[in-house]
Amino acid sequence: MENREISQAVIGRLPRYRRYLGELKKQGIERISSKELSRIMHVTASQIRQDFNNFGGFGQQGYGYNISYLHEEIGKILGLDKSHTMLLVGAGHLGSALINYMKFRTRGFNFVAAFDISPDVYGRSIGGIEVLPMEDLAGFLEKNRVDIAVLTLPKEAAVEAAEALTRGGCRAIWNFAHVDLMVPSSVVVENVHLSDSLYKLSYNIKRRELSETE
Amino acid sequence: MENREISQAVIGRLPRYRRYLGELKKQGIERISSKELSRIMHVTASQIRQDFNNFGGFGQQGYGYNISYLHEEIGKILGLDKSHTMLLVGAGHLGSALINYMKFRTRGFNFVAAFDISPDVYGRSIGGIEVLPMEDLAGFLEKNRVDIAVLTLPKEAAVEAAEALTRGGCRAIWNFAHVDLMVPSSVVVENVHLSDSLYKLSYNIKRRELSETE
Repeated sequence: MENREISQAVIGRLPRYRRYLGELKKQGIERISSKELSRIMHVTASQIRQDFNNFGGFGQQGYGYNISYLHEEIGKILGLDKSHTMLLVGAGHLGSALINYMKFRTRGFNFVAAFDISPDVYGRSIGGIEVLPMEDLAGFLEKNRVDIAVLTLPKEAAVEAAEALTRGGCRAIWNFAHVDLMVPSSVVVENVHLSDSLYKLSYNIKRRELSETE
Repeated sequence: MENREISQAVIGRLPRYRRYLGELKKQGIERISSKELSRIMHVTASQIRQDFNNFGGFGQQGYGYNISYLHEEIGKILGLDKSHTMLLVGAGHLGSALINYMKFRTRGFNFVAAFDISPDVYGRSIGGIEVLPMEDLAGFLEKNRVDIAVLTLPKEAAVEAAEALTRGGCRAIWNFAHVDLMVPSSVVVENVHLSDSLYKLSYNIKRRELSETE
């Protein structure tokens, strides 16, 4: 069952379930019904049950879900019971923010090195990590296991960097560059296209204004 | 037609179409068929036609789409033909990155002020903008029109800040805080939950490993 194909839409909703369960746990609450969880998360109880059924349902619904158990199980499904080593490629403002953000925000995702293409930032320390030249990337990947490369270079440089990462054996890229990376299917890519998100917001602002002047 | 309800999934795909069209335009290409666009974007031609039919189809398919026209029309649909004023709430690493990132990356989204809850950063300048105390927010919103508040405070502070923004008449929030904001439905919210994205990546890494050891 573990390895049945589960839709990315379902997977995309798991972190949000985990976030709410973490809050409930912190409040000392032990059990919750799908109906109550539905109410606080603004999704239907049927959606919750369907999503959880992909993973065997997580226990008896008559008594509600055990919050602590469910929180932990979803964490395991997401692979959060293991730590991950991360590599920053692109030590600009956004890259620096991510190194600093991650350090405080989450557990088990540890930056081990940072690279950049600009000699201006070589040797600089961000989040306690020294920025190295891109030329050293291949050598670094030969000697170190890296789980995730975080790519925050401008798009032209990002395409080249993704190729270097792939050649070096890196198999997961968290991509913030404003471009879709063309990498072998064995490489897992998760995109964060900030401009796309902002443009969607812009659309919804315009739509609201149109509906108000009707 | 302008105001028919179009699904957020379709809207979410528009920025990516626009991005590819912008690249093609830069390459001096004038027309493209849905088939060819489908090939470079790795989506089906039928999906493209369906998406575009929401907006009247954008011209004759026999001759392909006029790239420059389509790029501009999608920009208009997204409201990118107008400029937007932005307010930063949370002047930490991520907020600073966004002010600096946006400045170089996109057009028409202009930060006009920055606020924070920490006296440590009051008076500091980020991206050329002075950081003001949160106490000044209400007064600022009374005197200035703000299109979008960019919220990068830690989650507890973000909930309070969202309330202050809503009270002050701000009607759109680009939310980077790790919490779902409860705001009136007249306020448009677009979330960027970075941890959720990272956790999804973590899941896909784990899944790939499982499938390889089968």
